[in-house]
Amino acid sequence: MSHASEISDGACDHVTEFRLVRADCTWSRQTADRERGEGRLSDARIYESSSEDGVTWTVVSPIVFTYRVIQCESLLDASNDTLLFGHISSPTELQALKNNSKAMKRFIVIDETVNDLYGSQVAAYFGARGVTYKILSLPTTEENKSMTLVTRILEEVHKFGIDRRTEPIIAIGGGVCLDITGLAASLYRRRTPYIRVPTTLLAYIDASVGAKTGVNFANGKNKLGSYIPPMAAFLDRSFLCTLPRRHISNGMAEMLKMALMKHRGLFELLEKDGRHLLDSSFQPSGRMPENMHTDAASVSTRLAIETMLEELAPNLWEDDLDRLVDFGHIISPELEMKILPALLHGEAVNIDMAFMVYVAHERGFLTEEEKRRIIVCMRSLDLPVWHSDCTLDLVQKSLTERLQHSGGFLRMPLPTALGKAKIFNDIEESIMCQAFKKWCDEQCETTMKTE
Amino acid sequence: MSHASEISDGACDHVTEFRLVRADCTWSRQTADRERGEGRLSDARIYESSSEDGVTWTVVSPIVFTYRVIQCESLLDASNDTLLFGHISSPTELQALKNNSKAMKRFIVIDETVNDLYGSQVAAYFGARGVTYKILSLPTTEENKSMTLVTRILEEVHKFGIDRRTEPIIAIGGGVCLDITGLAASLYRRRTPYIRVPTTLLAYIDASVGAKTGVNFANGKNKLGSYIPPMAAFLDRSFLCTLPRRHISNGMAEMLKMALMKHRGLFELLEKDGRHLLDSSFQPSGRMPENMHTDAASVSTRLAIETMLEELAPNLWEDDLDRLVDFGHIISPELEMKILPALLHGEAVNIDMAFMVYVAHERGFLTEEEKRRIIVCMRSLDLPVWHSDCTLDLVQKSLTERLQHSGGFLRMPLPTALGKAKIFNDIEESIMCQAFKKWCDEQCETTMKTE
Ligand SMILES: NC(=O)c1ccc[n+]([C@@H]2O[C@H](COP(=O)([O-])OP(=O)(O)OC[C@H]3O[C@@H](n4cnc5c(N)ncnc54)[C@H](O)[C@@H]3O)[C@@H](O)[C@H]2O)c1
Ligand SMILES: NC(=O)c1ccc[n+]([C@@H]2O[C@H](COP(=O)([O-])OP(=O)(O)OC[C@H]3O[C@@H](n4cnc5c(N)ncnc54)[C@H](O)[C@@H]3O)[C@@H](O)[C@H]2O)c1
Repeated sequence: MSHASEISDGACDHVTEFRLVRADCTWSRQTADRERGEGRLSDARIYESSSEDGVTWTVVSPIVFTYRVIQCESLLDASNDTLLFGHISSPTELQALKNNSKAMKRFIVIDETVNDLYGSQVAAYFGARGVTYKILSLPTTEENKSMTLVTRILEEVHKFGIDRRTEPIIAIGGGVCLDITGLAASLYRRRTPYIRVPTTLLAYIDASVGAKTGVNFANGKNKLGSYIPPMAAFLDRSFLCTLPRRHISNGMAEMLKMALMKHRGLFELLEKDGRHLLDSSFQPSGRMPENMHTDAASVSTRLAIETMLEELAPNLWEDDLDRLVDFGHIISPELEMKILPALLHGEAVNIDMAFMVYVAHERGFLTEEEKRRIIVCMRSLDLPVWHSDCTLDLVQKSLTERLQHSGGFLRMPLPTALGKAKIFNDIEESIMCQAFKKWCDEQCETTMKTE
Repeated sequence: MSHASEISDGACDHVTEFRLVRADCTWSRQTADRERGEGRLSDARIYESSSEDGVTWTVVSPIVFTYRVIQCESLLDASNDTLLFGHISSPTELQALKNNSKAMKRFIVIDETVNDLYGSQVAAYFGARGVTYKILSLPTTEENKSMTLVTRILEEVHKFGIDRRTEPIIAIGGGVCLDITGLAASLYRRRTPYIRVPTTLLAYIDASVGAKTGVNFANGKNKLGSYIPPMAAFLDRSFLCTLPRRHISNGMAEMLKMALMKHRGLFELLEKDGRHLLDSSFQPSGRMPENMHTDAASVSTRLAIETMLEELAPNLWEDDLDRLVDFGHIISPELEMKILPALLHGEAVNIDMAFMVYVAHERGFLTEEEKRRIIVCMRSLDLPVWHSDCTLDLVQKSLTERLQHSGGFLRMPLPTALGKAKIFNDIEESIMCQAFKKWCDEQCETTMKTE
């Protein structure tokens, strides 16, 4: 990790690279060329240069984030350790915690609706485990997704009192609850560990596996937030059994996104079993424990998470603007803002994806038959594939916005085959218009019928 | 960076380590033992294990922070590029920016008092450079250091509109202004780059060189915040010429802290020239450009920054609790909260340090003569070395607090010689009491006289 060359050919004359070595509680700088002395070496570096105008130090310091995503069952079963200890990977630390006689404390933020459904189970879990706990039930809706609720959480956490190092805040709910609580935790004492327990499909496969937190601000979606991953996310699909059908569809749009971008197998699975998954809310069909990890629900969620992690882990802070996960998120933000709250996030994403499939077809990447299969699959998941408010004007405005916020490049992900994609900066205006026309011609009417 | 072994000897059976490789816009997992294929390799890793209970993925992902600290002169001189471009280290990027014909935008947050003194110069600078700018002057006092001001900044930034990637927010003022603005910037769009321009000595040598931002909350100092370093800090000591004398002393306490912990040379410099530095507000004595970088003001600030960077860079997020920079910060938080606003931060720190010097003496680390020299030096900087509200009770309460928040260890830094220190977990009660008694006997009266 030598940044010296990049740093040195600037205006400054000479750059010295220092490593940092610790001996006896004290860090000291050592030039990189010197024989390494005793002591612990840091990954951080300091580069120093001086000129007539003054001194410049460049600090290069890596922070390593480690977090766990655990797909499990019976999370609220009192005999299951996961909710209390699943975030700990070191066996020694785990043993120390279990041996500690001091009562543990946990602060839990839960979505109001989820509390009605599962609150007593959550309370029973912590009660049975002898934990001192506080359950804060909040109306974590998209309309309430603001700093006001973050502050509310912070006040209650502060009153309750937790050990910032060992007592993670737990969030149980949909993406809104997880995002708000994550932001509160990342602010409290500059960073307090937190845990995500998703109860919607969207949160299960998307909001739980990355680092983002956020709230809306000044009419902008997720305008404030942080990139602080949870210590762990515990995924238990049994929560989904009470989720309204429309919200299952909603989550499946993000699943389909990953399938179209990078996993043909997942697409074919959704094509074949998607409708059944929707009908059954991803619940196991019978009492067949031997099938547990091979049923369509397990396989599809697992693939969705794995493909998502592949794209998120190397780009946790979204510094790289070329992102396949942006598929479906080029036009949808504008559309969402325009007709909120008529469309759910995943629905808006799906309309965006459906249009992009037409663009990819027009560009010659997808055959007519592939295009048809994708649209049929979307429809089988009850997802909208067209919307009258998604006008050509709106499409063009979105692309202009995109250009501005992506460092001057379009960076548009497009499928180039089923389960394969690339990122493009040059989509001709004429292709766009033709695709839009065809999209409207073919999908407008059928959509009307199903509405 | 193989975490596999640590992760594998948990309850799970078998752990597979995956590297992430990018080819054609798409990241994919590859087992670590496989021959490396084509494509870009990420520093991130994913570890996967499955058991009967489910699947666990552990994501290990490093984020590298890079920031610059630049000691310079004439920052507000229109011919000086630093304020506009000093945060950019890559020469190609710099050239691209300078060639760009689009008008640059800058949003500046400035302390109200500083605005009265330097606001017109700041406006003149950006005016002369053809920059579209907005100067937001705020009463950034300790009492106002809260989320309210952060929100205020966010609203104005949003209204003004900046390009999150290329138009850093600039903060000009003391530690309060820099901390508040830093927090606002780290929240806006999950992270917007910012720049620190310190105008107090404390901010110059301390608040500007690390990653911390923060505001007070629920009666607690800096209870909310983030660890997001600025892109750059530009240090120009000419701002200090208007700073009240008491605030120069205040900053010198943190300087003395670094000297006592790790730099005998800096201590001797403060012993010899400290008083003069205080009298001259760190300004050059005459027009002697050849002396510019060898005068006591330059040397002492430079040493303070270098020693601070040495300790902060390897521990940017304060994950390591053994910190020499905590010297003077064991008892002072309690003391500050108790008698706010009678004492400035550096003054409280100095009282804490003076007592700790007695502890170190009692433990046999410092000779009577060394102890005396340190106290004399403190006095010469007009710093308080004792306070009637710093009772034995308060000391003991502070140590108990410390134990609780430091993972069960005291982690008390103490000088073991002039400019050398170690961290201790075992200070006997009797030593503490004797040190306290002697401290009161020797310093109480003299302090009374100077008050
Ligand atoms: N952080 C990220 O990476 C990320 C990723 C995707 C989406 N998001 C955010 O997530 C939010 C959308 O998430 P969402 O779709 O989960 O919305 P949501 O949190 O609003 O939940 C949807 C609805 O389902 C209800 N609900 C939740 N669990 C239930 C259950 N088990 N049974 C019955 N009802 C239940 C909720 O009360 C709510 O009315 C958006 O704000 C979006 O910005 C964040
Ligand atoms: N982020 C960090 O790492 C860090 C480190 C140390 C301290 N801090 C924080 O910094 C704050 C203390 O900083 P501070 O001592 O700079 O206090 P401050 O910001 O309150 O400034 C002190 C006073 O000096 C005035 N002032 C500032 N510059 C001036 C100038 N050039 N001429 C005349 N007057 C001027 C201000 O208006 C104010 O009244 C605390 O809130 C502390 O928590 C942060």
